[in-house]
Amino acid sequence: MRDVAVIGVGMNKWGELWEAAIRDLLAESVLLALDDAGIDSVEAMYIGCMSSGLFTHQEHLGSIGPDYSGICPIPGMRVESACASGGAAFRAAYIHVASGMADIVMAAGVEKMTDVDGGGATFALATAADQEYEVYNGVTFPGLYAMMANHHMHKYGTTRDQLSQVAVKNHLNGSKNPLAQFRMKVTPDQVKNSVMVADPLTLLDCSPITDGSAAVILCSMDKAKELTRKRLVKIIGSGHASDTIQLAQREDISSLKSTNMAAKQALEMAGRKISDINFAEVHDCFTIAEIMVIEALGIAPQGKGGKATADGITAIDGKFPVNASGGLKSKGHPVGATGVAQIAEIVKQVRGEADEGRQVKKADIGLAQNMGGSGASSVVHILEGM
Amino acid sequence: MRDVAVIGVGMNKWGELWEAAIRDLLAESVLLALDDAGIDSVEAMYIGCMSSGLFTHQEHLGSIGPDYSGICPIPGMRVESACASGGAAFRAAYIHVASGMADIVMAAGVEKMTDVDGGGATFALATAADQEYEVYNGVTFPGLYAMMANHHMHKYGTTRDQLSQVAVKNHLNGSKNPLAQFRMKVTPDQVKNSVMVADPLTLLDCSPITDGSAAVILCSMDKAKELTRKRLVKIIGSGHASDTIQLAQREDISSLKSTNMAAKQALEMAGRKISDINFAEVHDCFTIAEIMVIEALGIAPQGKGGKATADGITAIDGKFPVNASGGLKSKGHPVGATGVAQIAEIVKQVRGEADEGRQVKKADIGLAQNMGGSGASSVVHILEGM
Repeated sequence: MRDVAVIGVGMNKWGELWEAAIRDLLAESVLLALDDAGIDSVEAMYIGCMSSGLFTHQEHLGSIGPDYSGICPIPGMRVESACASGGAAFRAAYIHVASGMADIVMAAGVEKMTDVDGGGATFALATAADQEYEVYNGVTFPGLYAMMANHHMHKYGTTRDQLSQVAVKNHLNGSKNPLAQFRMKVTPDQVKNSVMVADPLTLLDCSPITDGSAAVILCSMDKAKELTRKRLVKIIGSGHASDTIQLAQREDISSLKSTNMAAKQALEMAGRKISDINFAEVHDCFTIAEIMVIEALGIAPQGKGGKATADGITAIDGKFPVNASGGLKSKGHPVGATGVAQIAEIVKQVRGEADEGRQVKKADIGLAQNMGGSGASSVVHILEGM
Repeated sequence: MRDVAVIGVGMNKWGELWEAAIRDLLAESVLLALDDAGIDSVEAMYIGCMSSGLFTHQEHLGSIGPDYSGICPIPGMRVESACASGGAAFRAAYIHVASGMADIVMAAGVEKMTDVDGGGATFALATAADQEYEVYNGVTFPGLYAMMANHHMHKYGTTRDQLSQVAVKNHLNGSKNPLAQFRMKVTPDQVKNSVMVADPLTLLDCSPITDGSAAVILCSMDKAKELTRKRLVKIIGSGHASDTIQLAQREDISSLKSTNMAAKQALEMAGRKISDINFAEVHDCFTIAEIMVIEALGIAPQGKGGKATADGITAIDGKFPVNASGGLKSKGHPVGATGVAQIAEIVKQVRGEADEGRQVKKADIGLAQNMGGSGASSVVHILEGM
């Protein structure tokens, strides 16, 4: 496999974007990434998107992406793995360039989620869970993660305040991110006292519904050296694993096996330990998710993710900054775009281009973890500045 | 890039399968392919599916595929490019193995289309067209292909009888295929006189709505030689291109540019001319589509696809057999499965394992062409027996 670098990144301002269709969102980030890379086309495009069919009645983004970005007839295909669609698209693009089939390939991600009737977004998102055994019986994602939170609190003594600290930290980081959807800072009391969604998860424990996109451009290392004067950011590890789609069929619902496996694969490929990594962007779709993810990655010991968060380990100036971008919590969570935006953030950080107040001090090696469903699929990538 | 072979294929009996959920369909073909290859797992899975969200309210097949096939926690991702989803999944799996990232990877495809209300399937399929400029104004796929047919008839003199001959040929072939959905033979008069759908296309000019799946297993050539005693079928060419999603934005709606480009790429990669290919499985979603595809591939000159069909060039015993399987017309068209089933058919033919009456005499090199929308994306693969 050839060495591959990321040479361009783009992300639009996320939020409730009523005036933009899904094709507009997608093209906006594609053009930003091309501009950042200083090139005018790519050889192929992978587009992460969870459910453009249910959200916007528009499938076939593999055609719309190139077409509305003005780079038709290059080939495009959509990649879906629920909320891990963006990470999966990045992995497919990475493998494409690494194979030698093409030198320059784009991974984009998009979701247009707010243009649906009341309840429509929750219905569409629930298609990432087991429709026949979970959703049919009335469970949606806040409920699934609430069960995981309750079990984690029961088993490890994780507290209500520790959950809140995830939201407090990520909103503080996101307040410095001009592209984030919700830039307000929040206090532990605000998180705890916001409206209950699924006990113990309140509204401020949950990531929002978002319209947004992101795009990154991958390039063979040899070609990248010719094309760019910016710091090259090399993909040194890639991992991907699945778990049972049903939460009820897992041995343990207070840990994330697929994330642990994907991380092991990526670290082994990179020849590194988790302690060699400087910072991470992880999938905090709910506050409990970030706690469980940092345990699965080995940033905190199993059962100690809440304490590590409360102790400031994962703060922007902590030992292992997590979600300097604001994470899904503050930045927003347009599901198909999330995994690609994580990569864009890591590249920005490694290049030292993050906005003031959220640039991680030592940012040479970053890790991105993107997750689908209640952990039924996970994708992990490790990137290093050259 | 490493040499890659197909070492196992599987396909279930297609039709209106009321007793099977989408997960059952998928697992059935996955297990058949594993059995055919004589192995019990793979390292990764790509799943072609156009719209499991709209058809079955179940996304995240990247988790369900491995889970319900009993090979969790291997990684899976769904690939979508409308009706070319299966071909795209095969291409992604091919690139994965060719890259060296894994030795054994599965490409599966599935669609469960009949379990919807009246009109629901046409609505879901229409999301492969331009929702804002085509579908919003009332056009669905029969209408789009009818426009292409009318233009082709006007420009080249293609006749009603030539359209019918595509259906007659493919149903004759499909009558020998025990896995096909509609095994009845049809006469030109029956095709012409069946109920009008969109002038000039009658019901028997259209491929049906189908539940079904298919799966194939790709393996690095070195490993394949160890694993199998069957004839090895090597992937010698792969091509993929896009076109504008809107029919109205094309220079010429009586030709298929994306198919022509994808075919050129695949032939160039294989170092062959179209005359070197023995037979093909192509995307006859409508009779006019097969006529236009054989022109785009160079099997017939531009404008002469209808005549070539009527002359028997593409018959099973003709100079260049096309759709020996029965094609989408007779075999059925579960959209995400179609492109994978084409590969399965080519492997069966190259191995000399096709059913009596539809085995192509000289079947050493076969071509598969899979198309999304009204030609907005096309995937072409060429496979050769070793």
